[in-house]
Amino acid sequence: MDLGRLEKLLSAYKKDELGLTEAARQISELHFEDVGYARVDHSRATRQGFPEVVFGAGKTREQVVGIVERLAKHSPNLLVTHTDEGTFGEVRNIVSEAEWHESARLIRIQRDTSELGVGEIAVVTAGTSDIPVAEEAALTAEAMGNRVKRVWDVGVAGIHRVLAERSLLQSARVAIVAAGMEGALPSVVGGLVSVPVIAVPTSIGYGASFGGVAALLGMLNSCASNVTVVNIDNGFGAGFVASLINRKWEPV
Amino acid sequence: MDLGRLEKLLSAYKKDELGLTEAARQISELHFEDVGYARVDHSRATRQGFPEVVFGAGKTREQVVGIVERLAKHSPNLLVTHTDEGTFGEVRNIVSEAEWHESARLIRIQRDTSELGVGEIAVVTAGTSDIPVAEEAALTAEAMGNRVKRVWDVGVAGIHRVLAERSLLQSARVAIVAAGMEGALPSVVGGLVSVPVIAVPTSIGYGASFGGVAALLGMLNSCASNVTVVNIDNGFGAGFVASLINRKWEPV
Amino acid sequence: MDLGRLEKLLSAYKKDELGLTEAARQISELHFEDVGYARVDHSRATRQGFPEVVFGAGKTREQVVGIVERLAKHSPNLLVTHTDEGTFGEVRNIVSEAEWHESARLIRIQRDTSELGVGEIAVVTAGTSDIPVAEEAALTAEAMGNRVKRVWDVGVAGIHRVLAERSLLQSARVAIVAAGMEGALPSVVGGLVSVPVIAVPTSIGYGASFGGVAALLGMLNSCASNVTVVNIDNGFGAGFVASLINRKWEPV
Amino acid sequence: MDLGRLEKLLSAYKKDELGLTEAARQISELHFEDVGYARVDHSRATRQGFPEVVFGAGKTREQVVGIVERLAKHSPNLLVTHTDEGTFGEVRNIVSEAEWHESARLIRIQRDTSELGVGEIAVVTAGTSDIPVAEEAALTAEAMGNRVKRVWDVGVAGIHRVLAERSLLQSARVAIVAAGMEGALPSVVGGLVSVPVIAVPTSIGYGASFGGVAALLGMLNSCASNVTVVNIDNGFGAGFVASLINRKWEPV
Amino acid sequence: MDLGRLEKLLSAYKKDELGLTEAARQISELHFEDVGYARVDHSRATRQGFPEVVFGAGKTREQVVGIVERLAKHSPNLLVTHTDEGTFGEVRNIVSEAEWHESARLIRIQRDTSELGVGEIAVVTAGTSDIPVAEEAALTAEAMGNRVKRVWDVGVAGIHRVLAERSLLQSARVAIVAAGMEGALPSVVGGLVSVPVIAVPTSIGYGASFGGVAALLGMLNSCASNVTVVNIDNGFGAGFVASLINRKWEPV
Amino acid sequence: MDLGRLEKLLSAYKKDELGLTEAARQISELHFEDVGYARVDHSRATRQGFPEVVFGAGKTREQVVGIVERLAKHSPNLLVTHTDEGTFGEVRNIVSEAEWHESARLIRIQRDTSELGVGEIAVVTAGTSDIPVAEEAALTAEAMGNRVKRVWDVGVAGIHRVLAERSLLQSARVAIVAAGMEGALPSVVGGLVSVPVIAVPTSIGYGASFGGVAALLGMLNSCASNVTVVNIDNGFGAGFVASLINRKWEPV
Amino acid sequence: MDLGRLEKLLSAYKKDELGLTEAARQISELHFEDVGYARVDHSRATRQGFPEVVFGAGKTREQVVGIVERLAKHSPNLLVTHTDEGTFGEVRNIVSEAEWHESARLIRIQRDTSELGVGEIAVVTAGTSDIPVAEEAALTAEAMGNRVKRVWDVGVAGIHRVLAERSLLQSARVAIVAAGMEGALPSVVGGLVSVPVIAVPTSIGYGASFGGVAALLGMLNSCASNVTVVNIDNGFGAGFVASLINRKWEPV
Amino acid sequence: MDLGRLEKLLSAYKKDELGLTEAARQISELHFEDVGYARVDHSRATRQGFPEVVFGAGKTREQVVGIVERLAKHSPNLLVTHTDEGTFGEVRNIVSEAEWHESARLIRIQRDTSELGVGEIAVVTAGTSDIPVAEEAALTAEAMGNRVKRVWDVGVAGIHRVLAERSLLQSARVAIVAAGMEGALPSVVGGLVSVPVIAVPTSIGYGASFGGVAALLGMLNSCASNVTVVNIDNGFGAGFVASLINRKWEPV
Repeated sequence: MDLGRLEKLLSAYKKDELGLTEAARQISELHFEDVGYARVDHSRATRQGFPEVVFGAGKTREQVVGIVERLAKHSPNLLVTHTDEGTFGEVRNIVSEAEWHESARLIRIQRDTSELGVGEIAVVTAGTSDIPVAEEAALTAEAMGNRVKRVWDVGVAGIHRVLAERSLLQSARVAIVAAGMEGALPSVVGGLVSVPVIAVPTSIGYGASFGGVAALLGMLNSCASNVTVVNIDNGFGAGFVASLINRKWEPV
Repeated sequence: MDLGRLEKLLSAYKKDELGLTEAARQISELHFEDVGYARVDHSRATRQGFPEVVFGAGKTREQVVGIVERLAKHSPNLLVTHTDEGTFGEVRNIVSEAEWHESARLIRIQRDTSELGVGEIAVVTAGTSDIPVAEEAALTAEAMGNRVKRVWDVGVAGIHRVLAERSLLQSARVAIVAAGMEGALPSVVGGLVSVPVIAVPTSIGYGASFGGVAALLGMLNSCASNVTVVNIDNGFGAGFVASLINRKWEPV
Repeated sequence: MDLGRLEKLLSAYKKDELGLTEAARQISELHFEDVGYARVDHSRATRQGFPEVVFGAGKTREQVVGIVERLAKHSPNLLVTHTDEGTFGEVRNIVSEAEWHESARLIRIQRDTSELGVGEIAVVTAGTSDIPVAEEAALTAEAMGNRVKRVWDVGVAGIHRVLAERSLLQSARVAIVAAGMEGALPSVVGGLVSVPVIAVPTSIGYGASFGGVAALLGMLNSCASNVTVVNIDNGFGAGFVASLINRKWEPV
Repeated sequence: MDLGRLEKLLSAYKKDELGLTEAARQISELHFEDVGYARVDHSRATRQGFPEVVFGAGKTREQVVGIVERLAKHSPNLLVTHTDEGTFGEVRNIVSEAEWHESARLIRIQRDTSELGVGEIAVVTAGTSDIPVAEEAALTAEAMGNRVKRVWDVGVAGIHRVLAERSLLQSARVAIVAAGMEGALPSVVGGLVSVPVIAVPTSIGYGASFGGVAALLGMLNSCASNVTVVNIDNGFGAGFVASLINRKWEPV
Repeated sequence: MDLGRLEKLLSAYKKDELGLTEAARQISELHFEDVGYARVDHSRATRQGFPEVVFGAGKTREQVVGIVERLAKHSPNLLVTHTDEGTFGEVRNIVSEAEWHESARLIRIQRDTSELGVGEIAVVTAGTSDIPVAEEAALTAEAMGNRVKRVWDVGVAGIHRVLAERSLLQSARVAIVAAGMEGALPSVVGGLVSVPVIAVPTSIGYGASFGGVAALLGMLNSCASNVTVVNIDNGFGAGFVASLINRKWEPV
Repeated sequence: MDLGRLEKLLSAYKKDELGLTEAARQISELHFEDVGYARVDHSRATRQGFPEVVFGAGKTREQVVGIVERLAKHSPNLLVTHTDEGTFGEVRNIVSEAEWHESARLIRIQRDTSELGVGEIAVVTAGTSDIPVAEEAALTAEAMGNRVKRVWDVGVAGIHRVLAERSLLQSARVAIVAAGMEGALPSVVGGLVSVPVIAVPTSIGYGASFGGVAALLGMLNSCASNVTVVNIDNGFGAGFVASLINRKWEPV
Repeated sequence: MDLGRLEKLLSAYKKDELGLTEAARQISELHFEDVGYARVDHSRATRQGFPEVVFGAGKTREQVVGIVERLAKHSPNLLVTHTDEGTFGEVRNIVSEAEWHESARLIRIQRDTSELGVGEIAVVTAGTSDIPVAEEAALTAEAMGNRVKRVWDVGVAGIHRVLAERSLLQSARVAIVAAGMEGALPSVVGGLVSVPVIAVPTSIGYGASFGGVAALLGMLNSCASNVTVVNIDNGFGAGFVASLINRKWEPV
Repeated sequence: MDLGRLEKLLSAYKKDELGLTEAARQISELHFEDVGYARVDHSRATRQGFPEVVFGAGKTREQVVGIVERLAKHSPNLLVTHTDEGTFGEVRNIVSEAEWHESARLIRIQRDTSELGVGEIAVVTAGTSDIPVAEEAALTAEAMGNRVKRVWDVGVAGIHRVLAERSLLQSARVAIVAAGMEGALPSVVGGLVSVPVIAVPTSIGYGASFGGVAALLGMLNSCASNVTVVNIDNGFGAGFVASLINRKWEPV
């Protein structure tokens, strides 16, 4: 919430420049805008440092476009995840800066490109098939003002591949590691660096991989202490948290 | 690894002051010390910013004490988790500064109390029964040079309790949230703050809580984008990662 | 069963106005009508206060229409759930009052609109994607004679959204809360109100949501004592039970 | 929360009879009392019509007794569940009216015995082994001002047993049904009555009952529309919700 | 295996009328015929009283037809399950007596209609949607020489429906009960009869029915002692075993 | 139920020799005797051909003894399963013929030893550790009037062991096969015989046997069509159903 | 890695014939070639005795073809698994020796047909439907220089079928056994031979086979000590390991 | 089976020196000795190259000792796994060469120490807590005539530890890798060597390790193609198969 605006409203109310009902209405509009099927949240940027991402799956195209329209008025940068190219076409009609990223199936609007991080974010995959999820993480991190280094296809069965990238990994402020199958790469990366590692299990694999469950369990049980985990295929979440870790921070 | 020492060894080898075999032996000793049942790792402090924690479960008392003895020579601060008071008795014979923390069932040696963080770490629980796991996190974070604020018993069924602590939460650099049962508190805290939230599912509950699985799944599926998750009851891991996030950091 | 009719049959039998075989046949017809593939149940309205809902999935279109045809003769109000628009077309040929509800994929026949409840029923969703399930609940409750208040998209990651609806929630006789992902909203609503909360897990989510299992487990483990749970995506069941709770009731 | 008291505080604050800090402190105390390891919640009686039950498992005996001591000052009736006879001994030293119920392993303090319900609550078990959970439900319902009828050992493999209790079941305002193994009894009871049925899976069984999971799944998939479910062995929750359903209610 | 033929071969071998190699070949052909992708088993009729059913799923149409062609030469009756109408078309070209059963998706060849059972087999379903699986059982039992009574849609939520069929059920030698959702009907039927009940879980249901797992677990945990269980949707297996139970039997 | 006695009561009622209330009471007593914690069922012998077995687990010793006392008055044969030697001591005080079977942990009272079966029942185990469960099945079958042949330790890894017992198996009317670990033996036995095979998974094994789940799944998926399955470790159920299959049967 | 080439590079570096940067680049190219979306690994042939198989699923057709193009330059033999005929068309444009294997959905390039094994590899299936997975294993083993014997459709329900192949099985150096459903065949084969058996669970089955999980668990719990297991449907892995076991081996 | 002895028996039978019954008895005794609770298998040494290991769990001490007594007469080497020191005491009374191995909880009798392998077997653990399972594997391999190299505590979070043992690993004929938690070490070792790797998941870990399931899934999904898996904690099985792989082998 915009605290300056809130304080003004409260002062006006105490001084009786504003009635109770009107004060309540204006305060509640600081928070979100009710469009029927959704409460569009204009205060989240303040609360979490970024506008609400629009999760496209399970919403009609009209709902997605409607939400984007409202959010784009207040927020320079915006992501729509789990969406399709048809929706992108309609979004671009509203916001011409919108870009379509095929591998991550994601719409990105990035009108503010200020750098906000203290260092770089490394995004790593075990295999070629994990790239779409990793791209979702990387695009999110860039949209949130970070420099990103991509390291693809360095899975543990050829351990020399990840060792060859050791110095790149050790120079990052935080690492994101996407892996399917046995999900072992975050443990190895975790042992090589002294910063947080965000592990993203992917649904890549077959048989007893159970759509990413094997990788998820592997990561939750990592013997490296600096590993935390997000949901299966949740590249967005990994990019979001990595951005918060990399962000310049001052005690309030 | 001690890079200065390594460079000296390599120079000596190139100048033939050191033979190949001897160089290899000395380099490998920089890494770890083999005590038969364990490879005691003196370089992890460099690699991850902290000595290896000793996970007590599944090791004999003799093994735990033996490993502590070696680690304590190189490292001022040290943790033994999942242990018991009898082991503590023997550890204190070796390192008099060792403290026993009953609720977390943890031995802590903290001879260096320098503050290393840029802000504070909030450690939060949903219920009274989650305190042991949260204490493990808090004690770990303190051992790694952080100031910690504890907030106990603010579960979501009485939402006013966590709202009453909103400003405390919003002033932290990172929050750790431990919860059992449905594990909903991290989502609520995640929505209130704009920093990373590390969620720790606890095995508190009964019936369909399945020893923490319900809480774990709840946290992995959190609708708050700033939540990452560690293993069930893994207070140590949460405290460790929170410390890395809070640590002052300079690009190398 | 129509108890008055039953008593008449039994008297006639005792007075030998009716033979044993004929009495048995007539009594059994009070219960249900056998149409080969189904036993159409005309007595359920008496037993449970509402005609049998027709669960469309797994039945052929002919079977659905045949069952509706028989039920519509005895019952003014009727629901067909988990069905499609084609079936609706054929049902409307038989019962012109039939309405099609696209988001819930449900046919409703509501020829009796008497109000039967003592208060209102609040129907709440965590997100936009949960609306179809919640609509199924709301439409059911309306068909059973209740006033319904809909509250969409007030999930816990923006806790101010549900708090803003607190007074609406607190004035209801019973609340239905539909949520996917971590399923945390029923606990929060449960803590805000002093009436029963019926939690409906939805299959919304991905990865470790396991088609609604994460939400289901979260709700079963709710720390709010006034929460009970129905099956994943079972909006109908939630609406049905809420109607029974809200119904005027007199001891017999 | 005590709304009258709150309004007085707010008026005093607006009239500047109370400073901001003092107003905040007094308002927050309306909510709960912080005793270090727990936030004792004095307002829940208002919010949910009953004092917070104390869940004994996972708390030390000292914690349980401390919480009871504070709650008993404000609330005439009180339950401690999942506890033991030793704790009861200490609780009775503080509150002499405390009773110990061995089969449910529950302490009950019931100083107010006013009847608050509109009808009766039927509590039913499938087998003898389900009685402890059902007793927890029945004792809870009595503590909340209800008349309870107990019907033990009427499982579906001898269907005549439950049919023999049909009229008793049909006269209740709400039924609680506890069953282990296949958990089929709630469906049968649900078909016999036209009021809500609260199903409680119990952990009774062996092999593929998986500690109550088979019964839980059976109940969630009940073909009777008036069945809702609580957690495995959660007799307290069932009794709590049944009490809210049976409670006299007036629109506010 | 044809024991008479085997004894002749062995005699011939002992009398040296047949060499070792030739004897082995002829004995092994008594067992099965190797057609490359399958070992067509001509001896199973002797070993189990019925020719091998052809499980259509996972085989190419050519493989199914090829196997049927060989089996039909030795066996008057034959079933192809989990198949489609196109395959039926080709099978009918080979065996003109083949019949297509749409609801069970099964081809039946029944050239021998002798009655082999001592009594009747009751086949029962909980709902209309369970009929396809139950038909597979009934058609199998008929193909194996049994009289079958079908009882559809008598699920436990309307317990009077199954009670109305009590005498029919009690006159059968064995009962097959197919049910999805909570799978409770076998327990009720098991309590009504004193013969074996073969329970068939069906994959009917949604949400926490997990494709028939809830019904399967319910049946495995049945409190009726005369219930055994076959795999989910395995109507064929149920019909097969029921036929073996109903078969006239003489000690050998 | 005793049908002769029932007809007499109904006649007396119709002739008004018996009032409605008294008739109802006497009819209901035909069914069961209510002893508070249990409904002792005197009619099950008629309904299922055997008195109710007493499942000892989850009942107090007093409850078990009380139920046995009542059942033993009406029924010559009786089993108490999942019990202990102390309970046996008290049962023997009431019924001197009671026997204690240590390996199956079962009390058997067998005062009627008439043979009721048409053939023999084979009881087979894969390993030595499966014997306790198999003994429960064998003792049950004997108590129900059957001759039993025991075949221990013929698991599939030494296939010659079960082949050596082929003729014994092929002469039985029904076979019970108990196996833990991979549970493969029922499939092999099923292929050797042409009668029903009742598979009993045992909880023998470790690691991924998951307390019998691996064996249970193996048996449910058996490629032998004559296999049905009971719950893990449910020797009693297997013996019960096998007895019903082996029983002489006449169409009614 | 090519150790001879590596030693030359290191000598040159020590003699300063090669600068540090250039030495590093050349050494790292010994390992793999970075093509953007993949690190093509030219050293795996040395490390594991075979070029990297290309797992087709989850990669675009362009990626598969690009990787094959690079690998085919260094390696005479090559496999692409989990692919389709369209991709095969493009691969054949690059490498004319490529063959398409429809049942295994696999591309094989086999330009070197030297025999490398000490004996033969037996590949066995339980049913006809398991052939595609078994073919993947057999084709892999042939590509790695082995003679393979195929034995199809010898599942345990007709135990004489596998016994008939006993001598063939006993002459192999290693056996691969593919089975779905209950997965019992590897245990039986394991008991017949004295060499390693590699069990491959297949996803063949329905209901409680859970896509191969039942077979997987059966195999992991095999009572035959010479059985190890690979992932569900992982024919390639089984063929690969069998080849390593069969390979001529000399101590280094 | 002793084929020479079998051929003699068959000749004698054909020449009528031996009757049918006597021949059958003598042939069947070649296979196993029936001691009531077990079929002691004297032919397995021939079939699998080693006497049957005695799995101690689930057998009484008397049963274990009885089986050992019989096996020790025919077999110089023998293992009893999952046993205790008390049983060892009794076994040593019978076979004085018996040794007790505390960490593996295993009795070993090794009277024949001939070396039977072509190379060495490397046994590797990820952590100190995995040593008991790895010791079971190592002791088994030694009992089967192999030289074993033990490598303890080289888990992937400190990747330099396993790299330091690379040459030792690369000189082995086969590697056994035991790991709990995420079970990632076999993939890394698999990438370093070109021989088969047998992965043993251990039950070490907590929370979402689910008693070894996380490690098991990780290993089954290994991206290294040369990895096969045995059951959780099955050190014996791993040692057994590794011995068969390492064994000198000649085509028959």
